[in-house]
Amino acid sequence: MVDINNPLILRYVESLIKSDKVVQEMEELAEKLNFPIVERVVGKFLYMITKLKNPKLIVEIGSGFGYSAYWFAKALKDGKVVLTDYKETNLNLAEKFFKDGNLYEKAEFRCGDGIKIAKEYKDIDILFLDLEKGRYLEAIKSLEENLSENSLILADNVLWYGKVIEKDIDKKTESIKEFNEYMFDRFDTTILPIRDGILVAIN
Amino acid sequence: MVDINNPLILRYVESLIKSDKVVQEMEELAEKLNFPIVERVVGKFLYMITKLKNPKLIVEIGSGFGYSAYWFAKALKDGKVVLTDYKETNLNLAEKFFKDGNLYEKAEFRCGDGIKIAKEYKDIDILFLDLEKGRYLEAIKSLEENLSENSLILADNVLWYGKVIEKDIDKKTESIKEFNEYMFDRFDTTILPIRDGILVAIN
Repeated sequence: MVDINNPLILRYVESLIKSDKVVQEMEELAEKLNFPIVERVVGKFLYMITKLKNPKLIVEIGSGFGYSAYWFAKALKDGKVVLTDYKETNLNLAEKFFKDGNLYEKAEFRCGDGIKIAKEYKDIDILFLDLEKGRYLEAIKSLEENLSENSLILADNVLWYGKVIEKDIDKKTESIKEFNEYMFDRFDTTILPIRDGILVAIN
Repeated sequence: MVDINNPLILRYVESLIKSDKVVQEMEELAEKLNFPIVERVVGKFLYMITKLKNPKLIVEIGSGFGYSAYWFAKALKDGKVVLTDYKETNLNLAEKFFKDGNLYEKAEFRCGDGIKIAKEYKDIDILFLDLEKGRYLEAIKSLEENLSENSLILADNVLWYGKVIEKDIDKKTESIKEFNEYMFDRFDTTILPIRDGILVAIN
């Protein structure tokens, strides 16, 4: 395992990014529960790219308690974000945070298999993948026909704590590498080496 | 001085990013001359953000021999990129590379003070700052009225080899930190901790 970024540099950038009270509460909860979130530097990036793209529909596969979705929602003009998660308790927390941040009207909260739920939607403008790492390739292959023209695909953890550069890699890491290669072949794609690596692709 | 990114991680991402022959030649020239360029990971990011933004006019302050401008130009649909540099020899090299890559029609090559030259343009959709590090703040303050609505401001080297987190900092580093703080106050802004730090702001 290697640091993708120097941790002190991440702290410097975080110190510059203002956030609201709800973002801070979510960050505190993540720390308390040791719950993985994309953190503030990636959160603000998701916000910026959403501002640029001005999407009508964002679908997340794997929302946890809504940290990334909250940043997406903050940047939305008149679109909506669909949160999906296996755990009702996560989504209940997300609902509370979205209500506190006056963003509840911009979101749908759906419990179950994110890939199956996403299949119900057409013309997804931003698809955000943050599900089990062995299922990224399945997710994109299942959902290509649900994407709008020029849609964005974003995926978290594609550098997998730096394991992608190790010699003896486990199955999960192998899956992530396969996913990365598929995305670079199939779409206009890059990876931003921020935090745990965020893949950005244009359909 | 600290690494913003793990160098092996940068190599992994670079290995996935395809480029054309001209990009490779420019990278080889940069290495040979020890000439600072934004490198492939930032280059592809500039390309991606340009695809998303679809700008009519990009102006660069500090183009060197055209590496970043080349990535911008590759992503342009029908807009143009204005390159500026003090050195005629740099711009001559840039012209050659743009011709080789069939991108010459998408570019203007202007020798002189980049800030002064940029003042001649109205409705700049993407402003790219890569000039002397002590002049970033002067550049943005001089050019705010030349930006289009919802324009993007991008600036390279805003983490300045990690010096922004050191205790005793020199004048250049102090200037960069002042610029960063100004940008976060004035615009919707973030910093991507990639290579030497790239600031992204929306007007």
